[in-house]
Amino acid sequence: MNTGNNMEFFFDPKSIAIVGASPKPGKASHVILENLKKIGYNGTIYPINPKYRHIGDLQCYRSLADIGDQIDVAVFVLPASKVIDILKGPVNNVRGAIIISSGFKEAEKGKWLEEELRDIVEKKGIRVIGPNCLGIYDAISRIDTFLVPTERVKRPKKGGLSILTQSGSFAVLIMDEMATEGIGIARIVSYGNKVDVDEADCLSFLSEDEATRYVLLYIESVENGREFVDMASRCTAKKPVIAIKVGKGEAGLHAARSHTGAMGGKYEIYRAAFKKAGIIEVDGYEGLKDACKVLDAYDMVHGKKVLIITDGGGIGVSMADACEELGLEVKRLTDDSRKSLSSRLPAFSATDNPIDLTASATDDSYFAAIEEGFLNGYDIAIVTVLWGPPTLTAGVVDRINEVMNSYNKPVIICSPGGEFTRKMGKLFEEKGMPVFLTPEAAVRAAAVLTGNGTRLN
Amino acid sequence: MNTGNNMEFFFDPKSIAIVGASPKPGKASHVILENLKKIGYNGTIYPINPKYRHIGDLQCYRSLADIGDQIDVAVFVLPASKVIDILKGPVNNVRGAIIISSGFKEAEKGKWLEEELRDIVEKKGIRVIGPNCLGIYDAISRIDTFLVPTERVKRPKKGGLSILTQSGSFAVLIMDEMATEGIGIARIVSYGNKVDVDEADCLSFLSEDEATRYVLLYIESVENGREFVDMASRCTAKKPVIAIKVGKGEAGLHAARSHTGAMGGKYEIYRAAFKKAGIIEVDGYEGLKDACKVLDAYDMVHGKKVLIITDGGGIGVSMADACEELGLEVKRLTDDSRKSLSSRLPAFSATDNPIDLTASATDDSYFAAIEEGFLNGYDIAIVTVLWGPPTLTAGVVDRINEVMNSYNKPVIICSPGGEFTRKMGKLFEEKGMPVFLTPEAAVRAAAVLTGNGTRLN
Repeated sequence: MNTGNNMEFFFDPKSIAIVGASPKPGKASHVILENLKKIGYNGTIYPINPKYRHIGDLQCYRSLADIGDQIDVAVFVLPASKVIDILKGPVNNVRGAIIISSGFKEAEKGKWLEEELRDIVEKKGIRVIGPNCLGIYDAISRIDTFLVPTERVKRPKKGGLSILTQSGSFAVLIMDEMATEGIGIARIVSYGNKVDVDEADCLSFLSEDEATRYVLLYIESVENGREFVDMASRCTAKKPVIAIKVGKGEAGLHAARSHTGAMGGKYEIYRAAFKKAGIIEVDGYEGLKDACKVLDAYDMVHGKKVLIITDGGGIGVSMADACEELGLEVKRLTDDSRKSLSSRLPAFSATDNPIDLTASATDDSYFAAIEEGFLNGYDIAIVTVLWGPPTLTAGVVDRINEVMNSYNKPVIICSPGGEFTRKMGKLFEEKGMPVFLTPEAAVRAAAVLTGNGTRLN
Repeated sequence: MNTGNNMEFFFDPKSIAIVGASPKPGKASHVILENLKKIGYNGTIYPINPKYRHIGDLQCYRSLADIGDQIDVAVFVLPASKVIDILKGPVNNVRGAIIISSGFKEAEKGKWLEEELRDIVEKKGIRVIGPNCLGIYDAISRIDTFLVPTERVKRPKKGGLSILTQSGSFAVLIMDEMATEGIGIARIVSYGNKVDVDEADCLSFLSEDEATRYVLLYIESVENGREFVDMASRCTAKKPVIAIKVGKGEAGLHAARSHTGAMGGKYEIYRAAFKKAGIIEVDGYEGLKDACKVLDAYDMVHGKKVLIITDGGGIGVSMADACEELGLEVKRLTDDSRKSLSSRLPAFSATDNPIDLTASATDDSYFAAIEEGFLNGYDIAIVTVLWGPPTLTAGVVDRINEVMNSYNKPVIICSPGGEFTRKMGKLFEEKGMPVFLTPEAAVRAAAVLTGNGTRLN
């Protein structure tokens, strides 16, 4: 909650010290050291541990003070009380610290330690991410302080999504999911207890960050609401910001308290703040995955008119329901449109909205239906291709892609089903069209693009 | 809507005629013929088409009347008006018909055809499934009238789930999903426009059907509410019945109308009927998949006390939120339990509920936490294993399975993440523990087991 924004160096540090570095493969500090190397961090790494002269091919230092140089970021993976001892000592060359250690505010006995920590770093002017966090994963500047091994948790490719999170496990999870889904990441900050750097600081940085195309926020609690709304508003003016608030009801709030020592506060207050700041709220882990997937592929749209196209009526009905629940408009096509469309579609097709191409659907019927919608003011098409109709070929993927590109409006693919369907889904993804495996997920994605988010009412 | 229940023969027919059978591989009737052979139907198949003497190795007949024998089930895949013509003709040896053809009530010009159809079959005493449907997939009696080729839509193995659905595309979808998920099926009935056989008839049959362990209903509309509630109540007294109602709001209702010609009616009325009949309502396609997956593995429980166990706080908070929203109880462990548990868990573990084993979790900590919960009256454990902690091994799967079997209570595995996590998830599934990929899905599954379903309020 430091005012200024003198924290950009976290995302481009010339040097990183690992306090408590160890040569033992099992140790957390060793995992971090390895991960920094693996990601290709190209500043100087200073392992620090009085017990060793070298760790791997790096010279090891007795203490932070021992390093003549200024240290941009010192990473701490030691017991809480040791962190305090070290920072209280003769440390004057550290700009920022990432304190991964737990045992602070979130633990009963650690509350005072965290107060002490706050005093020390404020006095010394050290900016701190954490404690009780994972720190930074940055695909742009190649930083990785996450203490999970890459064999177990994949690292995503470089991309436009930046993530801010109180929960470290959430950071790991979503990183792993994104890697598996092929969604690119710019920066992830796991800031845990937020003794200093908080979401407002990070939002302020990300709003100016060219590498960040959209932002995902995972929030258990916000302490300074006004600053949060200010910084978030600044960010949403430039790029989409999605948020998930956890710890909504009694049980959740209680759990959040013992997790990052978060104080909570009524959920309604958060909702109002999100609204005021122009943040798109998503509902749970599912909504959030869908949001990232669709924003990775498409820009936001300006209206809320959705055209639903299927070749199986039931799924269309489900999607119409889901659209309505999330405040999307499922307006009928005009009579003129329906007439002109009828001549291009199989007999028995339903041409209002949802459009049901029936089991006689062809590749061209998909093209025609989407075209008619985009020509007539629909903002998004949600398209389900069920592969039952023998008249459908893999060429439908190209036809859909073609009409999407011609009209430059987003087509969301809903592709529920089994093995064959999943295989065909990959064809859509290769063309850059995001595929969702359930009607609900496809509609959530559409709701994100309209700005409604997935938690209306 | 015929009163009696003289329709069991549909699920054990001695003979099946395919009216309009064709030797051409692309044709729907050909697909059905092939699928009947593939599934191993062991009654007599009668292809009917005046144009052919043989189709494959089967003798082909000119007409239904031409077959001396009684025909238990005649499958129609001809244009609507032809179906009428044939049934109006000299047909006196057919007990039941599956009319797959569309172009009846759901199409503007087909309303009168459907009335005519109803009159004819009532007069002749022919029971009818359809029209505008896919008919029957029956893994017990080996019947498959679904006109989708097995290359595109996999058939599931034999199991305890029976599905009743107005929507054919839904039947195909969910069948394909179940096959891919490894969930077993007893019978699927896709009855489309329900000119005769409806959900009440089928529920009455399934309530007595020993092969059916639980029932899934997909409903756009119910015409005879009282009969439905009666038959459903009879069924729920013996086995769980899950339902999804689609066509909830304006857009959905409108879509349903043009889909199976369903008249709809207020959603609230359906909810009341479900409640009265003891039906578990699920919300959308996702809720329904989760329900089938969990009921495939576990029996219903009698209470609503859920214990949440994780090794990553954030995910625990999300699950507590989701539990609360679906009316599950996330009660804290007693102080005695917490004390006894503390000695068995890593330092800094949160021991209330959710239990957070932290990044120091071991295989044994999972065992201890679940045991403590089951010893103290919790009905279900939802367990998330995030694979970050290096202290965790694949052996945790056995430990969790062991404690589950000792106490004979369901453990639901929540396993979000990427590649490694999905691989480990398979280990749980091999032991018969269902794995869900998001916190929301795991909680929906728990809500189904308690009978709350996923659409509380």
